[in-house]
Amino acid sequence: MKKTVKLCPDSSCKELTLTQVCDFLRSHDDYLLLCHATPDGDTLGSAFALALGLTAFGKKCMIKCADKIPQKYNYFTSHFENREIEYKTVVAVDVADIVLLGSLAQEFVGKIDLCIDHHISNTRFADNLYLDSAAAANCECIYDIFHCMPMPFDNIAASAIYTGLSTDTGSFKYANVTAKTHRIAADLYGFDFSPSEISRLMFDTKSRGRIELERMVLDTAQFYFDEKCMVLVATKQMQEETGCDDTDLEGVAVISRSVEGVLAGVSIKEKHGGTYKISVRTYPPLNASEICKELGGGGHKNAAGCSLTGNLEDVKKQVLAVIGKALEESNAGSSSDK
Amino acid sequence: MKKTVKLCPDSSCKELTLTQVCDFLRSHDDYLLLCHATPDGDTLGSAFALALGLTAFGKKCMIKCADKIPQKYNYFTSHFENREIEYKTVVAVDVADIVLLGSLAQEFVGKIDLCIDHHISNTRFADNLYLDSAAAANCECIYDIFHCMPMPFDNIAASAIYTGLSTDTGSFKYANVTAKTHRIAADLYGFDFSPSEISRLMFDTKSRGRIELERMVLDTAQFYFDEKCMVLVATKQMQEETGCDDTDLEGVAVISRSVEGVLAGVSIKEKHGGTYKISVRTYPPLNASEICKELGGGGHKNAAGCSLTGNLEDVKKQVLAVIGKALEESNAGSSSDK
Repeated sequence: MKKTVKLCPDSSCKELTLTQVCDFLRSHDDYLLLCHATPDGDTLGSAFALALGLTAFGKKCMIKCADKIPQKYNYFTSHFENREIEYKTVVAVDVADIVLLGSLAQEFVGKIDLCIDHHISNTRFADNLYLDSAAAANCECIYDIFHCMPMPFDNIAASAIYTGLSTDTGSFKYANVTAKTHRIAADLYGFDFSPSEISRLMFDTKSRGRIELERMVLDTAQFYFDEKCMVLVATKQMQEETGCDDTDLEGVAVISRSVEGVLAGVSIKEKHGGTYKISVRTYPPLNASEICKELGGGGHKNAAGCSLTGNLEDVKKQVLAVIGKALEESNAGSSSDK
Repeated sequence: MKKTVKLCPDSSCKELTLTQVCDFLRSHDDYLLLCHATPDGDTLGSAFALALGLTAFGKKCMIKCADKIPQKYNYFTSHFENREIEYKTVVAVDVADIVLLGSLAQEFVGKIDLCIDHHISNTRFADNLYLDSAAAANCECIYDIFHCMPMPFDNIAASAIYTGLSTDTGSFKYANVTAKTHRIAADLYGFDFSPSEISRLMFDTKSRGRIELERMVLDTAQFYFDEKCMVLVATKQMQEETGCDDTDLEGVAVISRSVEGVLAGVSIKEKHGGTYKISVRTYPPLNASEICKELGGGGHKNAAGCSLTGNLEDVKKQVLAVIGKALEESNAGSSSDK
């Protein structure tokens, strides 16, 4: 999270309205659409829907992502012929910071013409920015662009946009959902694709390795501070034995926040070279972002992260010390609320 | 599931339109609203929203359910003062068959004035029936009734209706969801309650015992027939050690169907006196209902069950024999598709 790639030297990022971003898309051509690294349903849904829409509008498009696109998105990714073109216009979708382009970041520093995003934390790394921070998913922005252009909408684009909405909201469960999110979903039901099949693929399908990983990680569960803090550990060995990837690990990490009474769910993931990635998920009055800031990281108020180096026990101690202090200061600590 | 309570002797059930059911509700008073046994979010959301609406409309209401209402629904159930009244009109909500009233069934045979339901399988046990089988949740019917009466809508009624929508659709994931479901959800966002907090309570909160139970049950996982069948076992001892109830067990059983490539997920739950309850969840071409029928049970095509007596290994063998045959007959067996 704390890599230092230099941002555009002069941060003269121009913020566009919906009408202006459509003017931009109409007046440019030969698009390279960039997804963020470790791509999820929202960055992929955004890129592929936009590519399909722009192509139908008569523009040329290609899509790039630093990491491999997971097979499970085939139902829409396979419907766009992603051929190399000589691109002239670079558009990042659902990318809050240039470092999130992963291994593509250095190559594109200062070269992003437009960013379409919904993260309030967007670092204005692009020349032009269309930002709707009220959107639960970036695919809401893409949906608005489709209507405003207007670009022809087909079943595949609809399924891609639905994927973004659904994955970025935990299937309409998170606090980011608005009436508009549901209204867009309702409109998408007018197209011919199976939202329930997408939901099953995205949420209710686990590899056998993932099930095995869950079992292993659950075995490490430890509770602290009167059970207000739960810590889960995932080692490299577990990941290797089960053949799971980082997305699987993320999924398992979420468990740490779902236990009744737990205010701080911590997952500690072993990375290369004695480094541990710590994910902290909290409920009020705790603030994950503040906890992780103290540990050299950052993030949102209910989900944040940091990286620590050392042996596992030391790392755990460091994290617990900060959480213990936060619990005490917030009066949610073990002694004060019973 | 197969109890035989006598239905109304002459099944002269009158089916009402939306306008007619509203006429009915306007012209009657002193309501007893009946929920189905082992109440869920949809039957409770329906009953409490309707009770709040009818009360605000000037009618008297009380609610009854054979089983205890789980505490987790307090956020709406606690806002209706459910006092005994001398009821004159009995209305069943989200009740597909009179036997689903549980221990109240015998008492109310032939005495249900109106049933408001969304199950296409409704057995017409009431004198009047308002049935919308296209509704994903019965709360969609209640929502329509609110608007058609019209009855004053408040934040609590909105949260009750949202609960029904969300719980009966697995948070908008199941195939029963329609554009209308999302449109109603969008409208409900206009009220002052927290849908994301409800989602967390309904879907993402697990007791520590439940987490422990998941770990234990996952430890029993075995795969058969080229990994197309997964079997999980939950013993009474596990349930006792973790303090989990049957709902927790059900939740864990669902895991057996979520593994990639698994066509038959089987969970075997130990009951009293050497009896085992078998749940079978399948994907096409397998048919859970047919598999369970061979074992003396029944159910739906993708989720069915049966009870078997004996020792665990024998029970497992019996179930596997039937599944093995079904896989073979469907050509999805291990030898034929690789």
